[in-house]
Amino acid sequence: MTSERAQSVVALGGGHGLHASLTALRRLVDDLVVDDLTAIVTVADNGGSSGRLRGEFGVLPPGDLRMALAALCGDDDWGRTWSDVLQHRFAGDGEMRGHVVGNLLIVSLWEQLGDHVQALEWVGRLLGATGRVLPMALSPLDITADVRGLDPDDPEALTSVRGQVEVATTSGVIQAIHLDPPEPVPCPQAVTAVREADWVVLGPGSWFTSVIPHLMVPELRAALVQTDARVILVLNLDEQAGETQGFGPEDHLAALAEHAPDLKVHTVLADRGSIGVEADELAGLVAAYGAELVLDDVALGDGTPRHDPVRLAEAYARILQRG
Amino acid sequence: MTSERAQSVVALGGGHGLHASLTALRRLVDDLVVDDLTAIVTVADNGGSSGRLRGEFGVLPPGDLRMALAALCGDDDWGRTWSDVLQHRFAGDGEMRGHVVGNLLIVSLWEQLGDHVQALEWVGRLLGATGRVLPMALSPLDITADVRGLDPDDPEALTSVRGQVEVATTSGVIQAIHLDPPEPVPCPQAVTAVREADWVVLGPGSWFTSVIPHLMVPELRAALVQTDARVILVLNLDEQAGETQGFGPEDHLAALAEHAPDLKVHTVLADRGSIGVEADELAGLVAAYGAELVLDDVALGDGTPRHDPVRLAEAYARILQRG
Repeated sequence: MTSERAQSVVALGGGHGLHASLTALRRLVDDLVVDDLTAIVTVADNGGSSGRLRGEFGVLPPGDLRMALAALCGDDDWGRTWSDVLQHRFAGDGEMRGHVVGNLLIVSLWEQLGDHVQALEWVGRLLGATGRVLPMALSPLDITADVRGLDPDDPEALTSVRGQVEVATTSGVIQAIHLDPPEPVPCPQAVTAVREADWVVLGPGSWFTSVIPHLMVPELRAALVQTDARVILVLNLDEQAGETQGFGPEDHLAALAEHAPDLKVHTVLADRGSIGVEADELAGLVAAYGAELVLDDVALGDGTPRHDPVRLAEAYARILQRG
Repeated sequence: MTSERAQSVVALGGGHGLHASLTALRRLVDDLVVDDLTAIVTVADNGGSSGRLRGEFGVLPPGDLRMALAALCGDDDWGRTWSDVLQHRFAGDGEMRGHVVGNLLIVSLWEQLGDHVQALEWVGRLLGATGRVLPMALSPLDITADVRGLDPDDPEALTSVRGQVEVATTSGVIQAIHLDPPEPVPCPQAVTAVREADWVVLGPGSWFTSVIPHLMVPELRAALVQTDARVILVLNLDEQAGETQGFGPEDHLAALAEHAPDLKVHTVLADRGSIGVEADELAGLVAAYGAELVLDDVALGDGTPRHDPVRLAEAYARILQRG
C-alpha cells in the first residue's frame, strides 16, 4: 500500500470523532501514504473540564485539542505513557474531580508561552506526535443554534440555544447553527494548512457542534471552499441523541450543504452497514452534490456507533491512492 | 576543577533550601566533579497546592519533589521550558488558584503508574534532569513538634503542634520534632543511595521541617548514621521567622545533634558573613561535634538569606576535592 508520492492531509472535527479519524490517519503516516498530517479542532466546548477552565481563565477550551494530540502520540513506551498521563482524569469528590491533567498542562503552556500554536507544538513534541494539532480559531467562541420545537405554545417557533453542550443535547430540531462571535480570530496556520493540503477530511463527529462549526469561521470556510484539496466527508454511523436525533445520511448531507452550499466535496465515505437507505439512493443523492459515494466496512461492529481505526485507515488509503 | 574520580552525592532537604543546593550541585555534574546526584525530599508538607492535593487524594505532597526536579532540569531550551511550565502556578480567583501544574502532573503519574519512584523518573526524563529525585518516605506523614511558650498560663509547658505549616510558623520555641506515623514506609532507593554515596549533603533549609525530618525516618536515619559517605552539613544564612526564631549557627547544630546524636558530620559549611559569632568559637563548637568548619562566601548578598548557586557550587567543589 504505497502511492506514487506521499500526500498531505488535514482532518477537521472535534472530540471522539476526530480522535477516531486521527487514529486511522496516523497509520497512513506510518505506512508512508501520508507525509504531513494536520488536525484542526473545534474550540467551542463549554462543558466539563474544558468549560471550567474556559470559565476560570478565558482561554480556549483545551479538551478536544488534548484528545487530538493523544490520538497522534508516538507509538512507543514514551508516547503512550505521556498520552495516558495527559488523558488522566481526576476522580474523587474534591475540587479537582473531572479535570484532565493534559487540559491543565495545555492551559499552563498557553499562559507560559503566550502563543496557542507554539504551546500545542510543545505538547506534540512531548508526545512524539505523528502530526500537528491546531485550533480552528484563536479566540474562544460559542455555538448558538436556531432550534425548532422547544416552544410548547408554537411548535414551529425558532428558539435560540447557546453553548456547545446545550446545542448537542437539545430536545428540539436544529435548523441552523452560528458562531458567537461570528468572526472569531482565525488560526493562520490552520488556514494555510487547508489551502496547501492534498486532502481534507471532514468528520466523523458531532455534526452541528464539531463538524459544521469549521465552516462557520469565515477565513477557514474560504480556505475550505477555495482549496485545491479533495474533500472527503466521513458520515457518522448513527444519529446522535440530541443534535442529530432521527438523522439519516441524507439529513447529515443536507445539513452540511445548507451551512456551506459552496463547499465542493470529492468523496463521501459511509459505512456500508450503517446507511439505513438503499445504496443506489444514497449514491444518487451524493452525486447530486457533485461527490462520489464510497461505501466501506468502517464500523467497529461492537454495537456502538464507533469507527474501527484499522478499517477506517484502509478505507482512507484506498480513497487517497485512487485519487 | 577536576578530581581524580567523579563522586556520587546525595542531597537531603526540601523546598527552597534543597532547590538552592541542587542548583549548585548540578553544576558539579556539568563539571564532571560529580557523576551521580540524588535528591531526597521531605514529604510532610500540608500547605498550599501540595496540602490541597494531599487532602484530596491522600498522596504524597508533590510540591517539594517538583521543585527539586525543576532545579535539575536540562540546561537547554527543552529542559528550561518544561521546568518553567511545571513550575507554573495558576492565578485568578477560581478553583485552580494556587495550584501548580507540575504538582498535578506528578499526582497524575502516581495514579497512572502506581509507583512513586517510577513516576518521578518519568518527570526527570521529561526535564532531561541532571540527577534523580526521591521522596524520603513512600507514605504521607505529618510533622509534630513539642513547643514551649504557647501556654499563657505556663510558659514552660510543652504544647504539641501538628503539621509542617503550623510547626514552621509557630510562635513558640521548638524543643523536638517527631513524625506521625513515627515509622513511615521508607523509600528503598533513597536508603540505598545514602548507603552507597561518597558524600551526603544535609541542608540548607527549614531546619525542623525540611532538614531534621530525614533523620526521623528510621531506615533513612540508620543509613545516614551507618554510611561511609562523608556528611556535609550546610548551615542556613539566617534564623527563620517561626521555627528557628533567634537561632544562631550553634543553635542549628545543637538542634540537629539532639535529634541525631549518632550522626557523624564530616564538614560544616557556613557563610563567612552570616555566622554572627567569632569564627574560632564556631570552629571549636563544630570540632566538638567531630566535624570540621569550612567558612566560605556562599550568600547571594542581595539582602535575602539565600545561597548563591555559583558560590555554593564552588564551595562544594573545594570540599569534595579536598576530600
